[in-house]
Amino acid sequence: MGNFVACCKGFWCRTKNPDVRISLPGVCFVWQIAMIILFGLFVRYNEESDAHWAEHRQKKNITSDIENDFYYRYPSFQDVHVMIFVGFGFLMTFLKRYSFGGVGFNFLIAAFGLQWALLMQGWFHFLDPVDGTIKIGIENIINADFCVAGCLIAYGALLGKVSPVQLMVLTLFGIPLFAVEEYIILHVLHVRDAGGSMVIHTFGAYYGLTISWILYRPKLDLSKRLSGSVYHSDVFAMIGTLFLWMFWPSFNSAISDHGDGQHRAAINTYLALASSVLTTFAISSLSAKKGKLDMVHIQNATLAGGVAMGTAAEFMISPYGSLIVGFCCGIISTFGYLVLTPFMEKYLKIQDTCGIHNLHAMPGLLGGVIGAITAATASESVYGHEGLVNTFDFEGYYAKRTPATQGGFQAAGLCVALVFGIGGGILVGCILRLPFWGDPADENCFDDEVYWEVPEDEESIPPILEYNTHMVGKNADMTSESNFTVEQS
Amino acid sequence: MGNFVACCKGFWCRTKNPDVRISLPGVCFVWQIAMIILFGLFVRYNEESDAHWAEHRQKKNITSDIENDFYYRYPSFQDVHVMIFVGFGFLMTFLKRYSFGGVGFNFLIAAFGLQWALLMQGWFHFLDPVDGTIKIGIENIINADFCVAGCLIAYGALLGKVSPVQLMVLTLFGIPLFAVEEYIILHVLHVRDAGGSMVIHTFGAYYGLTISWILYRPKLDLSKRLSGSVYHSDVFAMIGTLFLWMFWPSFNSAISDHGDGQHRAAINTYLALASSVLTTFAISSLSAKKGKLDMVHIQNATLAGGVAMGTAAEFMISPYGSLIVGFCCGIISTFGYLVLTPFMEKYLKIQDTCGIHNLHAMPGLLGGVIGAITAATASESVYGHEGLVNTFDFEGYYAKRTPATQGGFQAAGLCVALVFGIGGGILVGCILRLPFWGDPADENCFDDEVYWEVPEDEESIPPILEYNTHMVGKNADMTSESNFTVEQS
Amino acid sequence: MGNFVACCKGFWCRTKNPDVRISLPGVCFVWQIAMIILFGLFVRYNEESDAHWAEHRQKKNITSDIENDFYYRYPSFQDVHVMIFVGFGFLMTFLKRYSFGGVGFNFLIAAFGLQWALLMQGWFHFLDPVDGTIKIGIENIINADFCVAGCLIAYGALLGKVSPVQLMVLTLFGIPLFAVEEYIILHVLHVRDAGGSMVIHTFGAYYGLTISWILYRPKLDLSKRLSGSVYHSDVFAMIGTLFLWMFWPSFNSAISDHGDGQHRAAINTYLALASSVLTTFAISSLSAKKGKLDMVHIQNATLAGGVAMGTAAEFMISPYGSLIVGFCCGIISTFGYLVLTPFMEKYLKIQDTCGIHNLHAMPGLLGGVIGAITAATASESVYGHEGLVNTFDFEGYYAKRTPATQGGFQAAGLCVALVFGIGGGILVGCILRLPFWGDPADENCFDDEVYWEVPEDEESIPPILEYNTHMVGKNADMTSESNFTVEQS
Repeated sequence: MGNFVACCKGFWCRTKNPDVRISLPGVCFVWQIAMIILFGLFVRYNEESDAHWAEHRQKKNITSDIENDFYYRYPSFQDVHVMIFVGFGFLMTFLKRYSFGGVGFNFLIAAFGLQWALLMQGWFHFLDPVDGTIKIGIENIINADFCVAGCLIAYGALLGKVSPVQLMVLTLFGIPLFAVEEYIILHVLHVRDAGGSMVIHTFGAYYGLTISWILYRPKLDLSKRLSGSVYHSDVFAMIGTLFLWMFWPSFNSAISDHGDGQHRAAINTYLALASSVLTTFAISSLSAKKGKLDMVHIQNATLAGGVAMGTAAEFMISPYGSLIVGFCCGIISTFGYLVLTPFMEKYLKIQDTCGIHNLHAMPGLLGGVIGAITAATASESVYGHEGLVNTFDFEGYYAKRTPATQGGFQAAGLCVALVFGIGGGILVGCILRLPFWGDPADENCFDDEVYWEVPEDEESIPPILEYNTHMVGKNADMTSESNFTVEQS
Repeated sequence: MGNFVACCKGFWCRTKNPDVRISLPGVCFVWQIAMIILFGLFVRYNEESDAHWAEHRQKKNITSDIENDFYYRYPSFQDVHVMIFVGFGFLMTFLKRYSFGGVGFNFLIAAFGLQWALLMQGWFHFLDPVDGTIKIGIENIINADFCVAGCLIAYGALLGKVSPVQLMVLTLFGIPLFAVEEYIILHVLHVRDAGGSMVIHTFGAYYGLTISWILYRPKLDLSKRLSGSVYHSDVFAMIGTLFLWMFWPSFNSAISDHGDGQHRAAINTYLALASSVLTTFAISSLSAKKGKLDMVHIQNATLAGGVAMGTAAEFMISPYGSLIVGFCCGIISTFGYLVLTPFMEKYLKIQDTCGIHNLHAMPGLLGGVIGAITAATASESVYGHEGLVNTFDFEGYYAKRTPATQGGFQAAGLCVALVFGIGGGILVGCILRLPFWGDPADENCFDDEVYWEVPEDEESIPPILEYNTHMVGKNADMTSESNFTVEQS
Repeated sequence: MGNFVACCKGFWCRTKNPDVRISLPGVCFVWQIAMIILFGLFVRYNEESDAHWAEHRQKKNITSDIENDFYYRYPSFQDVHVMIFVGFGFLMTFLKRYSFGGVGFNFLIAAFGLQWALLMQGWFHFLDPVDGTIKIGIENIINADFCVAGCLIAYGALLGKVSPVQLMVLTLFGIPLFAVEEYIILHVLHVRDAGGSMVIHTFGAYYGLTISWILYRPKLDLSKRLSGSVYHSDVFAMIGTLFLWMFWPSFNSAISDHGDGQHRAAINTYLALASSVLTTFAISSLSAKKGKLDMVHIQNATLAGGVAMGTAAEFMISPYGSLIVGFCCGIISTFGYLVLTPFMEKYLKIQDTCGIHNLHAMPGLLGGVIGAITAATASESVYGHEGLVNTFDFEGYYAKRTPATQGGFQAAGLCVALVFGIGGGILVGCILRLPFWGDPADENCFDDEVYWEVPEDEESIPPILEYNTHMVGKNADMTSESNFTVEQS
């Protein structure tokens, strides 16, 4: 028995070995081949991307090619795509020596996740009952990008502390969890959540935070020297921030209703984001000696307004309503960075590298609540009869649902997102604690050296080389007198 | 009396205190709350972004949702949005230690300015006579971005020398000045200026230059060590340059007429910009020893063609006409950097950090003149009757206006822009000279340390740390012999 | 005779003089003026960008302005434009001291190339038989960007080893070669190649590789110190990679058929790219000690799927087919970087700075083959009758062509691209070997100092300055004892 305990202890506590030479290629190959097989079995073009479109058009009396959904949504899709890869990717380059991992692993898991999401979301939402296949078009690939966003948010909490294999596992489980959660919220509860305050942000954030809590590293301080930014890495992160900020109106409007739905969602998000910026700058300045601004706040909290408009963007929340949402979120989110992140790390044992609790969790929850209230107070006088029916899809089975009831269901949806985030996080966190995933030792966190061939430092370029040579020569003269040697790494 | 003079002198000449801990949050909070109240009183959705769109569509016999103005303009809007935040923002990161201020304060004032612009432009152009509210849609938010551009151009002249509070004041006054100027030019004079050569660039540049003249710092040389670029900051600035350059066709076509208007404006701008690039490279190389190119020219003068096509882009200037415009502007703008900027600093006491005189003022003026000439020479044989009426809006009250008269009015519009730019600049410059705005001392200009928490330098990452430790060890041995201590900041 | 040989030898082997002060401005000015004259003679707006559009619309019974081709293609155009200038430009910033040259010369030759391409492609494809002019619209400017891409790919092989004047010459000849090749492939052979696997990538890559072979530098090792990356230059290059990766669906769909054609091309490319990413990460990790990833692979091989879908993207290759294409290309391309690039440099004397053989040549060839197979196996059961006719343009003269025949012609097109690439490369390579183009000496390759005013190093900012001063002071004390002087460049 003692032997068994010792053996287990040895198994769990052995020195971390971050060599992923077998596991990472293995995971990538096997899963990609699985994708190909599953796509072969299940995925086909839908009637708008199939070569039969011309016939479909005539049959449905569609007057022009421009009515193809592609033209309604493609510009928004590309904006969302930029947010996923450049936005999330560069936002995570802020660490001084984890920029490769930030943008690179983001790239890897997003590329895997979007394929997996097309399948999982397809099975739940787009399965053709006739032939059992998934018919994909532009809306599916936007949804796949959305689904991936959930996992990338979770990555934000774990940045620098996990191996790429762990991230792949996180994505493997995160996507189906997301798809089921989304199915329950959007279809079973018939909740509206075009920009995903609940479905994407609340779920993704609690999923990541729970995993981070389970993977708590008491000795993370050993990597403290690498856990901050340098001047230029902060500027790189601003690229991510700005592309997220600018394209968030597209994110929230990408899959809302044609016409006024997309139009209104874009305007509301635009306003909420603008308002967030001002309150973020205000709180950041107010909280520091001499009013100095903190780049961490500017990079993150300015985006909170977009998160919080995820549900209500397509509703008639009115322009000033959007400004109020952004106003509050900028304040809450910045306070989160100032107060909650250190508190959570110290007392709750949750290490949240990017502060996703402040950027996604709190604004996401708030967004769900705002959506519920806005829905519950909707009226025909504001929306018009047809507008109300279109906006909330009060059709068919749901024709009799009232706005008040809808508000209740919206709130229920928020709870579902929370439960899936935390529950899924516990499950996946325990899996990720297994000792063979190749995660880095405590003293090597936030260090690209572990998983990347990192080029030599800038110091080694010519002028400095000459300087070194020069020094050596001088030293040669000098040693006789002072035994002095200058070495430069 | 002597006391009073001394007191005044003390008030005006006291040591600069760049602490903005009270003023910046105060300004952000109060103005954002004012925005919320004013939006609550005045701003509503227009019929294309309102939930009544479906009813409006039926009433107006619009066949399809794709006819919603959103689908005509949203892609251009997003491009313009990128220009405002990434384009202008990153163009201003070129200084070695003012990248945070460049991109960060650009972000702040643009986010405030666009809200304020929606109100000011709304009152002048979009006020609903029935209920006294402003009805906003996609065109309004493009216009708000345009309006903000005027203030960001002005910021270019002041980069590194003013406090964020001063920038907020500059924006607070700049937006209404812009809105009034725009109202006079576009509505009273009925001038065409889709891409804003006059309304945006001429106004913004002279506004900024005049303020910079009033805020002249005779001892700016004290910050000379920080007034240049480093290698990577120049690469960051190229991000700004390229996004401005690529999306300028969207800028000039974003609010021109549906159909051929937008189409032609994009093509003309595309050509003028291409032409600018070649002449910029030519002059830059010609002016330097061994033909070495200067990044300042490449980053800025290549854009001059886009500025100068702001008025004429939607006219039938013809493709080769666009090339000629770009050709001239590349030359003029590069010469400006070589000759005029140093001249203006030395003799006219105008310190123009980003050289907006070369990028916006001169090409803007030229653009206004080109627009006037192109309008004056328009004819039915070139435009067709309907084309002429559409392009110049010769309808209603203006049905009898001839192209020649239009040319005269275009020239008058240019004068209005100049007058507003210089007049507004004098007014706001005097306000900004008041000594309580927290601007930096002469020796701290171009330094992010003043308003930002700047991370430690890259030098401090591990390899170098080890080096330090090593040095200390060596020194310990050495001190007995030579009393030599190496200290590294 | 001996004299003549000596003279020739002196002419060919004289010391390299990279002074371009006369040649670069000369080339830029003369060619830009030539463009203006040729545009004046030949280029006009087409009926969709001309002010007569309103009349044209009525005549052709087009119901709405949204039917203007501008609205079908402008969002894709802007994405392609970003790929050309930011994508290609920043992908080439990866070298530690050639970022200015990478992004700057890319900018220059693209700006010249697109004007020249409008003319050359116009003469071959868009010449109005009535008045002998070229009528341009949105499709032309997309095609011009495509044409430029061929020359930028070629630049990738030569990066750091040629002068800007040589690049202008490369473009001057590259554009007409491209236009002729494209005319033969698309019009004479009636081959489909919407995303240009053959026309753009195969041609461009072999054009560049052949030139690089002819310009072989045996002593390039003298610049070895500058031929790698530094940490931040790798992050800059990721900007290029990601914008290429994200917008490749727009590239392949930009000029395919309205409706399902564009829709399907975007989806297929999206999937192939995602699949490439996983296999690239897998092979990169598998090939290195401890499984460490190499940024060179991630920056380049992840894009191979997009290249290889250039021909087949608009066909009914089916979603899993796209995944298979991406799967293979990621593997092939990464192996290329590991094995072929060193092999080619050592044994074939081809120095390929960016590895375009792996990113464009091999995936381009593969793309051509895949296109041929997919076309040959097309059937009415999959496409529908109308779909087959639309997709392959089996109309008019080609109404009787069968898919099998089409497959043969596709393969023939691939050979044409190869022949033009290699043949054109030999011609232009020989021209570029002439000794007066100002190319850098072997020891100055990959060095921005040769053609750019490079700012002083970051080391010179204040804290370090103080350190220097301090050192000097200390030295002053010390010299009496040790005659020791520290000098820093």
